[in-house]
Amino acid sequence: MNYQRFFEEAIDQVHAERRYRVFADLERIAGSFPRAIWRANGQEQEITVWCSNDYLGMGQHPAVIAAFQETAGRMGSGAGGTRNISGTNHPLVELEKELADLHGKEAALVFTSGFVSNEASISTIARLLPNCLVLSDELNHASMIEGVRRSGAEKKIFRHNDVAHLESLLQAAGRERAKLIVFESVYSMDGDIAPIERIVELAEKYNAMTYIDEVHAVGMYGPRGGGITEREGLADRIDIIEGTLAKAFGTLGGYITGSSAVVDAVRSYAPGFIFTTALPPAIAAAAAVSIRHLKQSQAERDAQQRQAARTKDILAAAGLPVMPSATHIVPVLVGDPELCKMATDRLLGVHGIYIQPINYPTVPRGTERLRITPTPFHSNALIETLRDALVETWDALGISYGATGRPAVAKSERIIPLLVPKSGG
Amino acid sequence: MNYQRFFEEAIDQVHAERRYRVFADLERIAGSFPRAIWRANGQEQEITVWCSNDYLGMGQHPAVIAAFQETAGRMGSGAGGTRNISGTNHPLVELEKELADLHGKEAALVFTSGFVSNEASISTIARLLPNCLVLSDELNHASMIEGVRRSGAEKKIFRHNDVAHLESLLQAAGRERAKLIVFESVYSMDGDIAPIERIVELAEKYNAMTYIDEVHAVGMYGPRGGGITEREGLADRIDIIEGTLAKAFGTLGGYITGSSAVVDAVRSYAPGFIFTTALPPAIAAAAAVSIRHLKQSQAERDAQQRQAARTKDILAAAGLPVMPSATHIVPVLVGDPELCKMATDRLLGVHGIYIQPINYPTVPRGTERLRITPTPFHSNALIETLRDALVETWDALGISYGATGRPAVAKSERIIPLLVPKSGG
Ligand SMILES: Cc1ncc(COP(=O)(O)O)c(C=O)c1O
Ligand SMILES: Cc1ncc(COP(=O)(O)O)c(C=O)c1O
Repeated sequence: MNYQRFFEEAIDQVHAERRYRVFADLERIAGSFPRAIWRANGQEQEITVWCSNDYLGMGQHPAVIAAFQETAGRMGSGAGGTRNISGTNHPLVELEKELADLHGKEAALVFTSGFVSNEASISTIARLLPNCLVLSDELNHASMIEGVRRSGAEKKIFRHNDVAHLESLLQAAGRERAKLIVFESVYSMDGDIAPIERIVELAEKYNAMTYIDEVHAVGMYGPRGGGITEREGLADRIDIIEGTLAKAFGTLGGYITGSSAVVDAVRSYAPGFIFTTALPPAIAAAAAVSIRHLKQSQAERDAQQRQAARTKDILAAAGLPVMPSATHIVPVLVGDPELCKMATDRLLGVHGIYIQPINYPTVPRGTERLRITPTPFHSNALIETLRDALVETWDALGISYGATGRPAVAKSERIIPLLVPKSGG
Repeated sequence: MNYQRFFEEAIDQVHAERRYRVFADLERIAGSFPRAIWRANGQEQEITVWCSNDYLGMGQHPAVIAAFQETAGRMGSGAGGTRNISGTNHPLVELEKELADLHGKEAALVFTSGFVSNEASISTIARLLPNCLVLSDELNHASMIEGVRRSGAEKKIFRHNDVAHLESLLQAAGRERAKLIVFESVYSMDGDIAPIERIVELAEKYNAMTYIDEVHAVGMYGPRGGGITEREGLADRIDIIEGTLAKAFGTLGGYITGSSAVVDAVRSYAPGFIFTTALPPAIAAAAAVSIRHLKQSQAERDAQQRQAARTKDILAAAGLPVMPSATHIVPVLVGDPELCKMATDRLLGVHGIYIQPINYPTVPRGTERLRITPTPFHSNALIETLRDALVETWDALGISYGATGRPAVAKSERIIPLLVPKSGG
């Protein structure tokens, strides 16, 4: 066994499959989101980020940054221990109260990330429950899949959002067997929403527990930012609501909320929660300020929905193949991995617009796409610049406009002057 | 299946096994480490933390806090995306260079925690290697055990630090089979050190890869804080060195360093790395400042070693059963879970001294202990106060002083006035 050669070949394999990733080196400019400095080949260029999951720009909110800075000044830069061994800092205790309140649950538990919250919670719940059957949506996120795998429990995959399929699996398992249904509210690659009420009804009918990932919805939906379950008045019929602090709330970390008993069980049994350093107090304090702000303020949610709708309309009017989406996510179909990568390279290099290509295995082959996430800070002017850049790129690379084709009106737009890149990057 | 009752019973079970944990709600006071505010029963009390893993107090270092604050002011409170999708911030890129340099390796990769770095890296490496056999020290940390489990690879446990046992397992597997030896440098509950050179020699002899967890050593050992492998000049003979940013470096996050090929393979294949939001730029910048400082400054390492040695000497001179430890960790044997908990409750409530009890399953039954971690900021006076509080507690609860018993000289110390608790907490 030649280890060095083996790993070199593993990387060659990634290259061969055109899946090798080069990370864009970015420096976001607080106060000027979505602008950022992009570094490549020793050069710096100011660009516009169109694919951030800091969906509401809360990461640059002055009150959030102030809480972050002030808390670090008072309590230092780290927690200094695991939750049990000197790491439970007061802002974390307050944050957990804030989160339980956000979802109207008895208790909340914070993890170092949304990934860890899913992996640790799902694996622990499904492992504790005797002979548990996990029913998992086929498009669930990698972190949920890891949690199901780690549990060692039997699992059945149901077709995406297919309640008839789910019901047949529940029925086959029977009312007595322990069952855990795991699914998301907003699926982030297509921007579609689960039939939550139908799933809840089935869970009640067949006595299953429900675990929902609201990572792409918390902060953004519901009158207080409690997610789709809040918007639809379903939170109290779901057993465990999971979310992240790293997207709409603009910081870092993940969490679950639920009954005291289930949260306490995860707290007491999950290695991924127990044996790791707690989040720094500054992060917890900043997250709590962000959540509190979004409980009261509609402005960010409204502006995001408005700019997302506007982006869809303007891109569609230019004939670009905007995929249907019920949410703030704007997927634009390319349908080929090479073209998708070429398009994003061109957008960045020529137009100073940064959108990461989404290729297989993140999405099915043939549905390679640009995934665009407008925030409240993507102005009308930026949306128009984006449209022009996309049209130029579609034309230059010969990407299909889809069935409808590019309408004649879009022609004139091609002569609108394009952004001139600030450097050779 | 009554889910609510089931989880209540799971918690009852934890209570019955005396493993139920109540987290101490702390607010560390930057500038006054190891002092902290402890909140309980609606009251606040200032206490001394004696069990932090912010081993060098870098979490309150002015330059580290300044980097944290300044970077948040310029770039915001979060990364806003996964490493691949808009989350690779410039301070993270710089941090990875700093870490590769720290261990003299080609490349480094940063994760959201040390736990995730172990779980994601070990599972990915052992899963990629065909028919890999993992050889794992029996006292390895939970995060390494999770990594081995998740890999699905065959594993053999070798007795703690037992190179003869390890050799027999290597020999049985033969030179040709892919093998990964996973172990720690400093084992944090006993403070003992692995026979790294012997393990490396065996790895070379039998053509095995080596993966070492230096979580409790980075920053603290070696002329630049490169850990025990640096101190012993062995870093270049180890394939992967893993560490944390959350202990001696005073922030949050974990990492691996190694050859470009192996690091790139983990980067490209590990779900726990790929599908999670990147560390905030402020954390990365603060960690880099901390690492850079400790590469140049011996003062913190020297002071920590001095105060740790002094703590051991002073506690031992008072007849307290200090367990042998080759490092900065000072374990004091209690040998009974109830007494261990009662001792720490008394230390906190009566003496304002916070030390978390370490019980089964973290350590074997019968070896329940206090795990004391002196930092450069635990002054001689604080050490004497600790000794007096321990002696008072040992006497009040009738805890055994062990074979040697409490020497006569310690008697007089009992009349030294004890810390008066500031409130009734
Ligand atoms: C559906 C879903 N769940 C969980 C996560 C993980 O959350 P975090 O970034 O906080 O680890 C993500 C993406 O990052 C996600 O898309
Ligand atoms: C040996 C060891 N490895 C890894 C970890 C995890 O590191 P982190 O706290 O950064 O998750 C710990 C403790 O927390 C540990 O003791």
